[in-house]
Order: sequence, then C-alpha cells, then structure tokens
Amino acid sequence: MTETTSTDSPAFPAAISTQQQAVEQTLTNNVLASFEDCTDPRLKQLMQSLVSHLHAFIRDVRLTEAEWNTAIEFLTQVGHITDDRRQEFILLSDILGVSMQTINVNNDALGNATEATVFGPFFVEDAPEIPIGGDIAGGASGQPCWVEGTVKDTDGSSIPHVRIEVWEADEDGFYDVQYPDNRVTGRAHLFSDDQGNYRFWGLTPTPYPIPHDGPVGKLLEATGRSPMRASHLHFMVTAENHRTLVTHIFVRGDELLKHDTVFGVKESLIKDFAQQPAGTPTPDGRDLLDAVWTRARFDIVLAPASIL
Amino acid sequence: MTETTSTDSPAFPAAISTQQQAVEQTLTNNVLASFEDCTDPRLKQLMQSLVSHLHAFIRDVRLTEAEWNTAIEFLTQVGHITDDRRQEFILLSDILGVSMQTINVNNDALGNATEATVFGPFFVEDAPEIPIGGDIAGGASGQPCWVEGTVKDTDGSSIPHVRIEVWEADEDGFYDVQYPDNRVTGRAHLFSDDQGNYRFWGLTPTPYPIPHDGPVGKLLEATGRSPMRASHLHFMVTAENHRTLVTHIFVRGDELLKHDTVFGVKESLIKDFAQQPAGTPTPDGRDLLDAVWTRARFDIVLAPASIL
Repeated sequence: MTETTSTDSPAFPAAISTQQQAVEQTLTNNVLASFEDCTDPRLKQLMQSLVSHLHAFIRDVRLTEAEWNTAIEFLTQVGHITDDRRQEFILLSDILGVSMQTINVNNDALGNATEATVFGPFFVEDAPEIPIGGDIAGGASGQPCWVEGTVKDTDGSSIPHVRIEVWEADEDGFYDVQYPDNRVTGRAHLFSDDQGNYRFWGLTPTPYPIPHDGPVGKLLEATGRSPMRASHLHFMVTAENHRTLVTHIFVRGDELLKHDTVFGVKESLIKDFAQQPAGTPTPDGRDLLDAVWTRARFDIVLAPASIL
Repeated sequence: MTETTSTDSPAFPAAISTQQQAVEQTLTNNVLASFEDCTDPRLKQLMQSLVSHLHAFIRDVRLTEAEWNTAIEFLTQVGHITDDRRQEFILLSDILGVSMQTINVNNDALGNATEATVFGPFFVEDAPEIPIGGDIAGGASGQPCWVEGTVKDTDGSSIPHVRIEVWEADEDGFYDVQYPDNRVTGRAHLFSDDQGNYRFWGLTPTPYPIPHDGPVGKLLEATGRSPMRASHLHFMVTAENHRTLVTHIFVRGDELLKHDTVFGVKESLIKDFAQQPAGTPTPDGRDLLDAVWTRARFDIVLAPASIL
C-alpha cells in the first residue's frame, strides 16, 4: 500500500493511501450524482448535503462493520419503542442537540422576540381549556405556582386572545402520558385577555430524567451522561399573524441549568420562581391551606409571521 | 442584524450574522463537551464526530422545523415497518451509500483478496446445507446456472472446507423471506472440497427492485431514483484464520451495473455468465430437459484474519 504524505486532506490519517481515498471519494460522488434527477431542488439539496456529511463521518472515524451493525440495531430499537405515547427518535434528536440546533437556525433575526427552545416529546393536542386564573394541575401533585405575564408583539403592543398551551411534569417527574391510566393532568390551554394578560396556577417545576429505560437511556449511560433535564414549564403560544412560539421557562438557581441533557436552556428563559412562605395571601384569594407556593412572571414577545 | 463579510466560514451564506454563528457554534461545543466524561474512548470519538457532522448538516442546509418533523416522521415509519423479516434501516443505509462506504473503509489494504460489497437485508441464518454440486434453488423459479470456483488465500494456497453461504432472488425478483409462506428457497450453504474447489447449481441472477412499498421506496420516488438493483448472487465465505468475505457477483452486460441503487457494484465482481444453448451437456450430467442454462466462474481469495 502506498502511504500518502499529502497534507491537503487533513481529514485522513496519513495511513490511508491516495488510492483508497479515491475509492471512497468516488463512491460519495456516485451517491451524490444519484440525486441529480431530483426535481425538487430543496429535497435534492437536503439529500446531497446529508450524504456528504454522513460519508464524511464514516470516513473520519473509519466506522467498523461491527459499529455499523450496532447502529442499525440501535435505530431498530429506537423505532420499536416508539409509539403514539413515546417518541424515542425525538429523545435521540434532543440528546444530540439536533433538536436545539434546528431551533437555533430557525430563530435567527427574531429581534426582541422571546427565544424558543425544544418542543420535547410530551405535548398533546386537545388539552383542556381553563379560564384565566385557572389551574392546569388537574390533580397532578406538586407545589402550587402562580404564573402570570403579558403577551406583546415586537413593537410593544399587547396581543389579546392569544392561545397559550402549557404543560409540565408532576413533582415525581412524570407527565400524564407517562402513566398508563389515560389521565390528563399538568396540561391545559388558556387565552390572554383583552389587554394581552394571562395568569394561571401550575406547579413549581422540578428536575426529572427524560425517559431512560430505552435505547436512548442506554446511550446516555454508556457515554457517562445524565438523563436529567433542568426544571422547566413548557409553553406554546399561537396568535394570528405571529410566529408560533415553542419554549420553556426555567427556574433560576436550579443546579441542572448548566447540564440540561437536551441543551434547551437559554439565559433569557431563566426566571425567578419566588418562594412564598405558608400563609402568604394568594393573588386570587385561593386558600392553599398553609402550603408553601411560588410565583413567576413570564412576559412573552411574539415575532411577526412575516419574517418566516 | 449584522451581516458578516468574512470569508473564513465558507459553509455559511453571508446572511448569517457572526452573532448567530456564535450561538450555533456554542451549542455544538456544549454537546461535544457533554461526551467528555465518556470512559470508552472509541465511543466518545464516534459520538463527538457524529454530533459535529449532524450539526454541520443542519447549519449548512438551514434545516427548517417542518423538515425536522418530516425527518422524525420518516424515521418513525422506517422503524415501524422494520421487523424480523424486513430491515428498512439497512435499506436506508444502502440507498444512501452508507453501507457501501462502511464496507469500503474496512476493505482497505486487503491486497489481492476478493473485494467485498454490501450484505443486504436478506441473509438468513441456518440455510440448508447442500453437497458440493447440489442445487440451492430448492424450488425457486429461474434459469439454471452452474457456479464454480476455488477458494485460496492471498499467497495462492487453496483453502479446503471453507463454509460458503449463497443466496439470491428468484426470477420474479423476490427472496424467499419476502413470501408470506415461510418457504426456504434460493439459499444454502456448502463447503469447499479438499482442494478448495466448490460448485453448485443456482439461478442466473436477474435484476429486481429493493422493497419499495415503504418509506425508503417513497424517498427514492420523491428524489427521482430507481429502486432497481443490478443482477447479483450473494456470497458469504468464512474460514478459520481468515477474514470473513461478504460479497456478490454481478452479471457482465447487465444494463443496471452503472445504476445499482445500493452502489454495490465493483468492477472485479462482474463475471461472465456464459449462456449455454438448450441441449449443451451439463458439467455433472444433470438433465435440464432442453432448458437454456448459464455458467459462471468465481475464484475467491480470502484475506488473513491477522490484518483486522
């Protein structure tokens, strides 16, 4: 075998011969060429870029056939554990930062709009509607938390009648859909009032692991990573003529803020969840029977739809 | 938004601000850092390289959230159609050239050893044993084909008692496992004789489409690609102290040799399948009742296991 001493292909260790490099590059070129007849220019771009990057990965790491087999088996397990209530591909995308990087590249140039973060796998359509000031817990256990804010556009005008979906885990770290009994708890939607204000009772967010009894959990364990997410409360905010906002708010002081396993934390989304001693009067007069509670403010700024 | 005029980040269009590039690079760096505590250095290398390439793909194409959703849904469909008899993830790897590139990077420096190609999804363990000169068809329909050769090592010494697995589609383009009736046809294993020779009856290979009624078939159609494979006969050859060889032989003159949808064709694996007019005496005296038949020679050279 002829060893190359060329330095113009830094991706290859010197032990890869120029002849072998040519064999590998020819294959990549052939695969790229196979998409030349694609009549959808965006699909063609996506497939050709994906092929380039996947082949570069295989060549860079000199992927072994045993490792390829392990990858096929891993993806098969991810596919088989995925069903209507569990989306392991989203978990995989999340823990590789793929979800968050996709959010990032789509949230450039939103001006002063509220930052987005990962959607996560636990949103459910048709969550119950609550009135302004209502309780999303629906029986989920946890410390009561009063959340309020105003929804505005990037010019500072309030937006009335905005649909606000909120969802969160209970104090044991589980969303309703992770229980086998079809309960609907810890999720609801409400609408901002005529002045764009909203308020509701929820639960003080607590840290929890992403579902880690499947292949993604095994991958985290094998790589020495924690499955824990920083404490958070999910929001999805939709208003006509505005860009839909999918985000969370995080709890200032949470030790996991720097180690969120899905890389969802952004500084602007960290909020004070102010602890209220037992007996502190509640904003709406609700009697919490001497429970400790918290309150947080989250003012939301929606970008115009036109920037899409 | 500040536009960058820098030319040192050619992957980014000028419209991506330096601030936005920093946000994206910081995320990638954070994900890479999350694998720093991985105690398995190879797994750490694989995950960090995969993350780098996946993030580069997302940033290069500016992947939209709708496209990300489509990708998650596609992978979910690939997972759900995959079962013990159908492996759609292997098909996906095959049509992206990922399988063949993995074969390539593992077949450098094998000297004069027979070249490898893709394994494909249709191998089955425990195929029946046939004697030397036996018939692998087992009732599968197609034109009879006599295949013979010698198994040697890279020094030219013949290797006796080598296990040779062969499998192929019938003339309708289907492997046995694609029929719902649990038939075992078109596959068998035999052993080379004391001199390393082998011979068997099979079927003249015919072109066929990979299974294209699932998500991978839809992707091929959407990108204007054919699902057809060049005609071929699969081999897996195993001998103690030698590298296992997984390969095919292809039919010289097949129009699909340049458009094999899994990129498996290598020049050295294209063989003459010489047409024998009806009535031509067969090598073993078998009476083919005036059928036309073919014959092919495939001499196999196994690399030593020590190069692994």
